[in-house]
Amino acid sequence: MDRDRILLTPGPLTTTLRTRLAMLRDWGSWDGDFIALTAQVRQSLLRIIHGADSHVVVPLQGSGTFSVEAAVATVVPRDGHVLVLDNGAYCKRAARLTTLMGRECTVLPFNESAPVEPAALDAALAANAGITHVLLVHCETGAGVLNPLAQVAEVCRRRGRGLIVDAMSSFGALPIDAREIRFDALVAASGKCLEGVPGMGFVFLRKAIVEGCAGNSQSLAMDLHDQHRYMEQTGQWRFTPPTHVLAALAEALAQFQEEGGQPARLARYTDNYRTLVDGMARLEFMPFLDARVQAPIIVTFHAPGDPRYAFKDFNAGARAHGFLLYPGKLTQVETFRVGCIGAIGRNEMQQAVHAVELTLRELGIASGAPALQQRREG
Amino acid sequence: MDRDRILLTPGPLTTTLRTRLAMLRDWGSWDGDFIALTAQVRQSLLRIIHGADSHVVVPLQGSGTFSVEAAVATVVPRDGHVLVLDNGAYCKRAARLTTLMGRECTVLPFNESAPVEPAALDAALAANAGITHVLLVHCETGAGVLNPLAQVAEVCRRRGRGLIVDAMSSFGALPIDAREIRFDALVAASGKCLEGVPGMGFVFLRKAIVEGCAGNSQSLAMDLHDQHRYMEQTGQWRFTPPTHVLAALAEALAQFQEEGGQPARLARYTDNYRTLVDGMARLEFMPFLDARVQAPIIVTFHAPGDPRYAFKDFNAGARAHGFLLYPGKLTQVETFRVGCIGAIGRNEMQQAVHAVELTLRELGIASGAPALQQRREG
Repeated sequence: MDRDRILLTPGPLTTTLRTRLAMLRDWGSWDGDFIALTAQVRQSLLRIIHGADSHVVVPLQGSGTFSVEAAVATVVPRDGHVLVLDNGAYCKRAARLTTLMGRECTVLPFNESAPVEPAALDAALAANAGITHVLLVHCETGAGVLNPLAQVAEVCRRRGRGLIVDAMSSFGALPIDAREIRFDALVAASGKCLEGVPGMGFVFLRKAIVEGCAGNSQSLAMDLHDQHRYMEQTGQWRFTPPTHVLAALAEALAQFQEEGGQPARLARYTDNYRTLVDGMARLEFMPFLDARVQAPIIVTFHAPGDPRYAFKDFNAGARAHGFLLYPGKLTQVETFRVGCIGAIGRNEMQQAVHAVELTLRELGIASGAPALQQRREG
Repeated sequence: MDRDRILLTPGPLTTTLRTRLAMLRDWGSWDGDFIALTAQVRQSLLRIIHGADSHVVVPLQGSGTFSVEAAVATVVPRDGHVLVLDNGAYCKRAARLTTLMGRECTVLPFNESAPVEPAALDAALAANAGITHVLLVHCETGAGVLNPLAQVAEVCRRRGRGLIVDAMSSFGALPIDAREIRFDALVAASGKCLEGVPGMGFVFLRKAIVEGCAGNSQSLAMDLHDQHRYMEQTGQWRFTPPTHVLAALAEALAQFQEEGGQPARLARYTDNYRTLVDGMARLEFMPFLDARVQAPIIVTFHAPGDPRYAFKDFNAGARAHGFLLYPGKLTQVETFRVGCIGAIGRNEMQQAVHAVELTLRELGIASGAPALQQRREG
């Protein structure tokens, strides 16, 4: 049976047929209809963060990482100094792209199983007056940790430093209110919790800083100030936009609103998360993170301790049962990840757990319990 | 009637329903099926230029301009010196992005109504031994000029300089044989003559230079060496790929081969071009370019000299009749452009001319003849 598999991955994820059907039309990129579509999407995005008064939003072609790089390139002056709060793989990527483009970059390391600490940030900023910007990954999908955005933003505001937020995998699901949280740039993408298809990102820029960003970027393609200025003047994207991806995002945003916006999405993902974790607990799987720091976006599980376990086989088994899992991204511990996001609900999560159960049985693995726990019990 | 309009624009363009239907499936970006799809597309692209022995091809998220910037950033060392052969808007854009990223850049200007001159290039290279790379736009869609790729490549080969080709709007339609034409990088995109949807580009890199490109790029997202290395190791894209766009490109490539590959595509576009130009000539429109330097990709026409003509109204009229034209990009002369590419044939071009005829009539414009010609006749 050639049936679509359910993607339990943190984007690309499973979208609705309605969203994909929006891609059946071709759009002229400078036509009035497409200009209106771009404007409509931008307005919808601003409404999600209650940011119409304080921010603009600039869409950008490419993956989410392109938009993170563009945010740093545009917002941070060439002689700026970025402090990256690092508790995972996506933080390290942000530090790498910041360093590569020639901005001074300092990394403040934290444990990847815990949120970053606002007090440590405060001390670092007190100790180094040269730091101009702080970069925070809101939800670190490397392990799945939710970082304390509001507290970090408050420290930055108090210390008078700019804040760049990678909200790639949290935007649309977790609450972000621009009236309460101060940031210079916040980055997300089409193919995550908004449940569009991948192919474009977008960056919210604080209105007060936009004009000062002129000339910062050494990249033409990634210059969000230039993209914004052109878009304000013409309504068009500077370079060929991913027209079908934008049309899908517009349709995904309509469904987002119909569902009840961010609170409803968070409720569904939280239910997905609980259904998953409860079900996996029955199979004795153990989440890597403490539940108190876990975002309901993606869950890292310890690999089963059974010697018959190998991710490759486990993954192939779940795949044969119709579900795509995600490999772990931690270097020290063997893990795998399961996403809770996308156009899926309790049914899919229950069936996913069932697929895992069938797979364990086929591999002759009696329990999902990790090695450590087995030793404890033995 | 909410019927899809025909896009007579140089990308995004009109695609087949079959190509768009390929976007109805969601793909896991690290799943075996998607890895196989990526490999299949890369092989198909290499076959088009007969480049499997000499080149690799690296896909990149974003618009074509992202891939042009990535090619320069990856291929040109930080102390390199790029000579841009400039006969139009896309050449100027390439020079701008080269300068912005900090590479030394010299512009060799030519008239925008004529091809660049290999002899002038030869003289410039003879006079400046510091120039390491030459950048050529194969088909300059600013006016529609076809530039002499083979002769330019030969000069670069003889002088021992690298060549970067922006083949955005020629690739797939005009012949490019890597066995005969030597280039370091050649750039194109999904949404042009291959008739896919927009959202990704790709760059052919000469195998002999790939390893030497490590560390050149100051942009992480645009580092084609890094993207290539990762793709060779894992089969995956480094960052979230535009999965649906790639699936559409794979389906577009299948149709490209079924049609008869590049020769068949060129034959259809040439027929589109002749149908257009012959039809417009009956309405007394005058092409901006001499037919000998005109690529059958996009045609720039002089605006009618009639004082009742305004592009805005003319365009709105053609649009109401179902066709999207394209504004001119020349600064000195009033023009408009009509694309000959996309999943369209003689019928569509005949109807396009008819739509223009009806529009002229509605606007009370008796003839498409430009002001100059009217003066001549007057």
